[in-house]
Amino acid sequence: MTLPRIGITLGDPGGIGPEIVVKSLQEISSLPPAEYIIFGDPAVLEAEEKFLGISLACRPYRENQPAQDTQISLKEVRALRGPVAKGRACGKNGRASFRFFEEAVKRARRGSLQSVVTAPISKLSWNLAEIPWRGHTEYLEQFYPQAIMTFWAERLTVALFSHHVPLREALKRIRRKNLLKFFHILDQSAEKARPGRYELLVAGLNPHAGEGGLLGDEERQEIIPAIEAARTEGIPASGPYPPDVIFRKALGHPERIVVALYHDQGLIAFKMEAFETGVNVTLGMPFIRSSPDHGTAFDIAGKGEASFRSMTEAIRLAAELSPCSL
Amino acid sequence: MTLPRIGITLGDPGGIGPEIVVKSLQEISSLPPAEYIIFGDPAVLEAEEKFLGISLACRPYRENQPAQDTQISLKEVRALRGPVAKGRACGKNGRASFRFFEEAVKRARRGSLQSVVTAPISKLSWNLAEIPWRGHTEYLEQFYPQAIMTFWAERLTVALFSHHVPLREALKRIRRKNLLKFFHILDQSAEKARPGRYELLVAGLNPHAGEGGLLGDEERQEIIPAIEAARTEGIPASGPYPPDVIFRKALGHPERIVVALYHDQGLIAFKMEAFETGVNVTLGMPFIRSSPDHGTAFDIAGKGEASFRSMTEAIRLAAELSPCSL
Repeated sequence: MTLPRIGITLGDPGGIGPEIVVKSLQEISSLPPAEYIIFGDPAVLEAEEKFLGISLACRPYRENQPAQDTQISLKEVRALRGPVAKGRACGKNGRASFRFFEEAVKRARRGSLQSVVTAPISKLSWNLAEIPWRGHTEYLEQFYPQAIMTFWAERLTVALFSHHVPLREALKRIRRKNLLKFFHILDQSAEKARPGRYELLVAGLNPHAGEGGLLGDEERQEIIPAIEAARTEGIPASGPYPPDVIFRKALGHPERIVVALYHDQGLIAFKMEAFETGVNVTLGMPFIRSSPDHGTAFDIAGKGEASFRSMTEAIRLAAELSPCSL
Repeated sequence: MTLPRIGITLGDPGGIGPEIVVKSLQEISSLPPAEYIIFGDPAVLEAEEKFLGISLACRPYRENQPAQDTQISLKEVRALRGPVAKGRACGKNGRASFRFFEEAVKRARRGSLQSVVTAPISKLSWNLAEIPWRGHTEYLEQFYPQAIMTFWAERLTVALFSHHVPLREALKRIRRKNLLKFFHILDQSAEKARPGRYELLVAGLNPHAGEGGLLGDEERQEIIPAIEAARTEGIPASGPYPPDVIFRKALGHPERIVVALYHDQGLIAFKMEAFETGVNVTLGMPFIRSSPDHGTAFDIAGKGEASFRSMTEAIRLAAELSPCSL
């Protein structure tokens, strides 16, 4: 059996990224079997290990020699000179965190990695470094425009039909054809990740899911026909459910993936349930990408106080989902 | 000091309404000082008291003689003949629950009551009885088109800028002028209810509250100018906040009233926090109307098992808010 290879980027060197990566990997014995490959600057990693009093004993990453046993490897990405500015956005750190990510994605795209776990970057740092993408997601979208943002917590799983677009635009995208295409991609990803052990619960768009047309007609015109077409093809989809009830229906059943029709429909519920403790997983690509659902936390960077729970869950999910080579 | 007079309707006789009214009023010593006046059919009330083994010892309601001490009165509304059908919608019960409500509202409108607390009705029963209104809210809207739906839980308070309209229509209503008018009404109600002890947190419409125009322009065109105009007038409003963050910001601070711009923006969050345990309060009328945030629960009606927590909170809030004659 070949172990999955999971790339892990250090994130913004000025944020809590390096800290939560080192802390999570220290507990490697509790993670699934895999080769965990850090993508980062060796100086940043060493400084973090020294500060935390942790030695990960990384081995050098060998592209063509996958590890036989669980281990931590380091793919050196030298991207910084001089001391690291902690606790604030800066172009130098933005450039470095972009390079770590770019190197990991390059290998994932050619099949050398099954997953990429990304520690938090600062969008402002990327902007200061004149990186032309807003963040990880936008960078990946150039290669995989059909990528799907999903959010995973212990008791709730949510997939977003649309995300960073104005609400007015999100409404326009709610068309039978687009929905069915989305169900296909999500279903394929979910089937690989959790064969036979998932279902899709689709939210309505309007109050009370339209109440039979009284409160909006997108349900009858677009959403219900799309769900029915999906079911005909064997996709375990149901709905549309009233948006203010569907999340309670799914709560405690993470195998029930809630399809939210726009950014805040999904994320208002998700962040009520798991504020900065969930995991963001990108599906619909040849590899998995996961990340903790929080930011660089500049205010506590360099203090050793950061919680690494969400990062550990991001790594665990990446490893669990990746053997199936999504 | 004159005690506030709080009307309490029995709701649909086939649902849990009579049960939770009787159970809540049994604990009258833990409720605020007030005259609590039940609007209902004496046969329904007596049957419920007998079944539960509780005697409320109601006195007859005297329109022109307010009680001097806390007491329970009964305004008899004879509206049913024969045995009550429990556990299902029916026109006879729909007609009765409408009559209880109508009688209470009539007195509230002429100033004899400061609040009306409504036990759950069945919209289907009203429909079967050919009542031309969908529910309590729609009935009240004919007299008070500017009435505001708000939701109160221990840790969260939410006001809805719009409610039972298609999402597409809700977006169209987001205009500077409409928002400012809404802030005025909400502010006046809140100031009477909680003088000096509240603030309004206004949600954005788009993901990340528009992110400076990148993800939608309603914030810059309509919402921010409305908030600024309100502040100039001394209304303690702030925002717009990202819709997926504002509720976490308000959680634990019920004095921070979240202004949600559409039905599900507010109710997805509210129902995650308080599913069927919160209280629905209508503001912006000459009297307060409150109700438990759950339905008739036909499945457990007549079994004596219904939780009356939400009903008790609805009565308590109505009494607390009403001395100020909102």
